[in-house]
Amino acid sequence: MHILVTNDDGVTAPGLLALAQEMRSLGKVSVLAPDHNWSASGHVKTMDRPLRVKEVILADGTPALASDGAPSDCVALALLGLLPDKIDLVLSGINPNANIGHDVTYSGTVTAAMEAAIGGVPGIAVSLNSPANHLGALDYGPAARVARRVAMRVMKHGLPQGILLNVNVPYLTDDQIKGVKITRQGLRVYRDRLDRRLDPRGRPYYWIGGESPTGIPEEDTDFGELARGYVSITPLQLDLTACHILDILGKWDWEE
Amino acid sequence: MHILVTNDDGVTAPGLLALAQEMRSLGKVSVLAPDHNWSASGHVKTMDRPLRVKEVILADGTPALASDGAPSDCVALALLGLLPDKIDLVLSGINPNANIGHDVTYSGTVTAAMEAAIGGVPGIAVSLNSPANHLGALDYGPAARVARRVAMRVMKHGLPQGILLNVNVPYLTDDQIKGVKITRQGLRVYRDRLDRRLDPRGRPYYWIGGESPTGIPEEDTDFGELARGYVSITPLQLDLTACHILDILGKWDWEE
Repeated sequence: MHILVTNDDGVTAPGLLALAQEMRSLGKVSVLAPDHNWSASGHVKTMDRPLRVKEVILADGTPALASDGAPSDCVALALLGLLPDKIDLVLSGINPNANIGHDVTYSGTVTAAMEAAIGGVPGIAVSLNSPANHLGALDYGPAARVARRVAMRVMKHGLPQGILLNVNVPYLTDDQIKGVKITRQGLRVYRDRLDRRLDPRGRPYYWIGGESPTGIPEEDTDFGELARGYVSITPLQLDLTACHILDILGKWDWEE
Repeated sequence: MHILVTNDDGVTAPGLLALAQEMRSLGKVSVLAPDHNWSASGHVKTMDRPLRVKEVILADGTPALASDGAPSDCVALALLGLLPDKIDLVLSGINPNANIGHDVTYSGTVTAAMEAAIGGVPGIAVSLNSPANHLGALDYGPAARVARRVAMRVMKHGLPQGILLNVNVPYLTDDQIKGVKITRQGLRVYRDRLDRRLDPRGRPYYWIGGESPTGIPEEDTDFGELARGYVSITPLQLDLTACHILDILGKWDWEE
């Protein structure tokens, strides 16, 4: 079993180290991750410039590879043969913040798992629902152990073609976590606000600001079950077709 | 009717100009687009740096706005109030290449329409299925006229919450286009290949290379109908939950 570990926060992120260390109990682990942070970067395929890959050493002394590409580029590089051994499973994370609701379309963590699914390899994105404005080091231990449990089951059962798993873990101790819930993507409520400022030369610039997003705490959704203290596992698909809308659109008058 | 036009190829792209000009027959048009190319950039929300917006003049002498943000940032800026007038419809394109199959997860053109849907405004992505390795200027006229027809129908019927339209137009004349088909997302076949080279200093770098992607020409799919000479309109949704997998995952043994 050869497991690729990547993330969108960069190869030096503590969440990646925790994930890589935990995965080593399941097989051979290769780390190929971005050399800088790509949060909220979406699904990227870098084709207009070449990518560099360098050898680095993680904080626990183990070797890893860092690329100047995006998380999805790292997965593509690995699957296209940069790593000579076949990859059986891709784990992405651990992201320090939840990736739920519409977040999944922005999330570099999730798009790495998406790239794995496109390449025909099971992909699992793992995120920690840490409190907003948390100061100090986060404890990634419980989330890493959840990731291990999920990875073991995916190794046992496999995943259907075109499916990836989006795992979000509440910021609780192992004992406090209530269990696992299979969920659907919930509704995020973004509270973005345009923050217009003037630079020292009097010219305007704009922050996408506002408060952290919240969500609708419906049962069986990622946001709802996470809020109740459960691990949320949402199967995501690469097919975005809104099948229930096909008939409606077909009835519109399309003649000129 | 106030229509925002954006794209992922940058504000100077001819496909954007053709789209903006055609949309002017339907209402007031504002252009806010990236100041450089963001192809294959995915869904971006820029929160770690402020964004700049500058006034520019399109090739037909009309005013527009250019931002150093991604296509989805442009839509977010506009919807968050950078443009004081309420926006009723967002058109993104015209992309010079098709966005079909898994392309939609990478496509900056599509993510701009996705951002509109998140903001509660109907979004339409428009792409032209131009021949691979086409040399010289593309004729965006037929695709722009298709975009106008689609926009008129969306203005009349509206779109359900969380739905966007992904429109792909064959590279044919108005007369040659066979009609409109409502489609589902097809299967892209990527033929990416890792191209390892050495720089003048003997250090390796990597291109994601290989031949252009092809696809499975199934009926009722974007790829299939486009290949047959039809305009393909696929309704896409923001909810990526693989609902048919929920039961399967629920039956896995999740206890330790």
